[in-house]
Amino acid sequence: MSDLPLLRLLPGRDRRAKAGHPWIFSNEVAMTPAARALPPGCAVRVEGDDGVRHGVHHFNPHSLIAARRLSRDPEAVIDDAFWQARLAEALALRRRLFPTPHYRLAHAEADGLPGLILDRYGDLIALQANTAGMEAATPAILRALNALIAPRAVVARNEASVRGLEGLPEATLLLHGSDPTGTVEEGGVSFSVDPLGGQKTGWFFDQRENRARVANLARGETVLDAFCHTGGFGLQAAAAGAARVTLLDRSEHALATAMETARRNGLEDRVEAVRGEAMEALERMGREGARFGVVVVDPPAFAKSRKDIPQAIRAYSRLARLAAGLVVPGGILFIASCSHHVPSGEFTDTVLAGLQRARRDARILAITGAGPDHPIHPMLPESVYLKALTLQLS
Amino acid sequence: MSDLPLLRLLPGRDRRAKAGHPWIFSNEVAMTPAARALPPGCAVRVEGDDGVRHGVHHFNPHSLIAARRLSRDPEAVIDDAFWQARLAEALALRRRLFPTPHYRLAHAEADGLPGLILDRYGDLIALQANTAGMEAATPAILRALNALIAPRAVVARNEASVRGLEGLPEATLLLHGSDPTGTVEEGGVSFSVDPLGGQKTGWFFDQRENRARVANLARGETVLDAFCHTGGFGLQAAAAGAARVTLLDRSEHALATAMETARRNGLEDRVEAVRGEAMEALERMGREGARFGVVVVDPPAFAKSRKDIPQAIRAYSRLARLAAGLVVPGGILFIASCSHHVPSGEFTDTVLAGLQRARRDARILAITGAGPDHPIHPMLPESVYLKALTLQLS
Repeated sequence: MSDLPLLRLLPGRDRRAKAGHPWIFSNEVAMTPAARALPPGCAVRVEGDDGVRHGVHHFNPHSLIAARRLSRDPEAVIDDAFWQARLAEALALRRRLFPTPHYRLAHAEADGLPGLILDRYGDLIALQANTAGMEAATPAILRALNALIAPRAVVARNEASVRGLEGLPEATLLLHGSDPTGTVEEGGVSFSVDPLGGQKTGWFFDQRENRARVANLARGETVLDAFCHTGGFGLQAAAAGAARVTLLDRSEHALATAMETARRNGLEDRVEAVRGEAMEALERMGREGARFGVVVVDPPAFAKSRKDIPQAIRAYSRLARLAAGLVVPGGILFIASCSHHVPSGEFTDTVLAGLQRARRDARILAITGAGPDHPIHPMLPESVYLKALTLQLS
Repeated sequence: MSDLPLLRLLPGRDRRAKAGHPWIFSNEVAMTPAARALPPGCAVRVEGDDGVRHGVHHFNPHSLIAARRLSRDPEAVIDDAFWQARLAEALALRRRLFPTPHYRLAHAEADGLPGLILDRYGDLIALQANTAGMEAATPAILRALNALIAPRAVVARNEASVRGLEGLPEATLLLHGSDPTGTVEEGGVSFSVDPLGGQKTGWFFDQRENRARVANLARGETVLDAFCHTGGFGLQAAAAGAARVTLLDRSEHALATAMETARRNGLEDRVEAVRGEAMEALERMGREGARFGVVVVDPPAFAKSRKDIPQAIRAYSRLARLAAGLVVPGGILFIASCSHHVPSGEFTDTVLAGLQRARRDARILAITGAGPDHPIHPMLPESVYLKALTLQLS
């Protein structure tokens, strides 16, 4: 028998666990003094009031999501071999999906690694431990990473606000190795990442397929990449043969990084950087009569919580209206939302309403989400956060 | 002023037209004796009871969808130049999307061509006119196609049951040219199409991106392609490097065509054909212990009307359960539905329920639809018919 502490569910509160949901909420747990005294992030066995065994979980007595399932096997031993097997499975999937070692290596619950995010830039790894369990398991995760891929450096980017819900501080630090900078090869362009640097230049793997889709439509076109960050969309469009690319962002550092990438990849002749608040810049460009064959709008999350939703909806609608006004007849508008709290259907409706206000008819060419290195857990459809529309405007 | 006949909407029945919806229902129209006497498929001007002009439509006094918008411009002239401009726009989009001339060239309302479907196989075109308006416009469409791409042959595949709702007979015939056979190049394989032949070998462009996704996951794997038709998924998987591909279909002709394609493309050593009813064959293979690295399940529509939905849901759930049982641990299940009447969320839930009954955990790698040559009209979300899930099973 496993010698892990036992966590018992309250009578009648095992419906979710029985259905296979990977989370147990604090109000489903018999929060005895013994349970309350368990160290946050320890592994526990979970049993229903009826004695049914629901596997081994990470437990945090202070979190609303009190337990997150690690294994359905009630006898599972959470040792180095366990973590290595889980990471090996995640790694095998990514190797099957992608030709080069640049991807989200672990995407939390969907990879059987609740609360753990790993992004891989060749031999550099960025790690996010978003639960007390994964914070406690980080040394074991590092050993497993070393055994599997021997990364040159691993950086903890423990900055997510969700760590607060787990009672964890925010911190960015080098966990392993040295020289924690790396590159991502995508769409024929080599991008730099520097997850520990003063400006923390990261990379969003989730838009990989969307960037390829937009680049394919950009050959010979003028392109505006609004909220460009380090130029993922715009520079791949340039590499695919765009005639001219305008990168727009409010961050001087992001634009400088993007232009340095343009130079390193021999794209600087066709790329220009414009610094400004995207919403204001789009409005000004519209007034000035600027028009583009392809406009990309990939803003940061507008709705960080439920109460922000109405304001976020207004912002997306306004963005869609302003961006549509910059698209030539027959041109492409790509617009995305990474707001967890705005559902896909509502985002689509909002964008279409914005187009109507801009008096532009549209074909919807694609409704897409994050790439396959961001798998979805079947019981956590709410983990689908990225929504994107590719539209051709008449 | 346009000299087209005027169709007037009933008082208070212009809400949909004002919102920009491309359809006008018969109960929204002032069905006067003059309107009723108009020839099915003629072009009309539409005005609200308030005098607001809603553009030019195709009209059929005998159809529930009485009018379908051709142009928002109330003065639009529906002549050869009109059709040529519409087709040129549709053609320009596809040329931008795809490197070779194999695609759905026109996808009805979303391309401003209500009721018209054109599939292009190089210099062979298959045409479906699903409304009286498009039936009447077919000669003009042919002239426009000749002006734009001078096809060697155009075949009418007017077999859709929706033609009955428009009072049109079903018919398959050569409209133009000779030798109406062609090829599709996709995923490194050349497939034959013969839309007029005794067995009417067609091609489903809608799954193009899904075939590429599956092929990318099939390298080195054993693959089962159930409901394989002429082998689109399986043969592209073989071309991408699958170790062994089993094609399963009940049609001897489809299997013979697929195996001929395998031979012509040098893939026959790794491809075998199994004839059988897919559901029964999956069950038998499961009993016999057959297992595959990748299983593709792409059945014909199970729900042809609303009343079929419960039965279709049961069939999809059973299919998912049987197919999941054939997937090795860590393997891929691709499953699709082209049933208009089963919404995307319900299809996903049904498949996941089937997996639960098979006791298989899953990662959802992608939730996808038809490719971008099947655009969606923003006001016709119900025209989204294809739903597909790419899953990795534990």
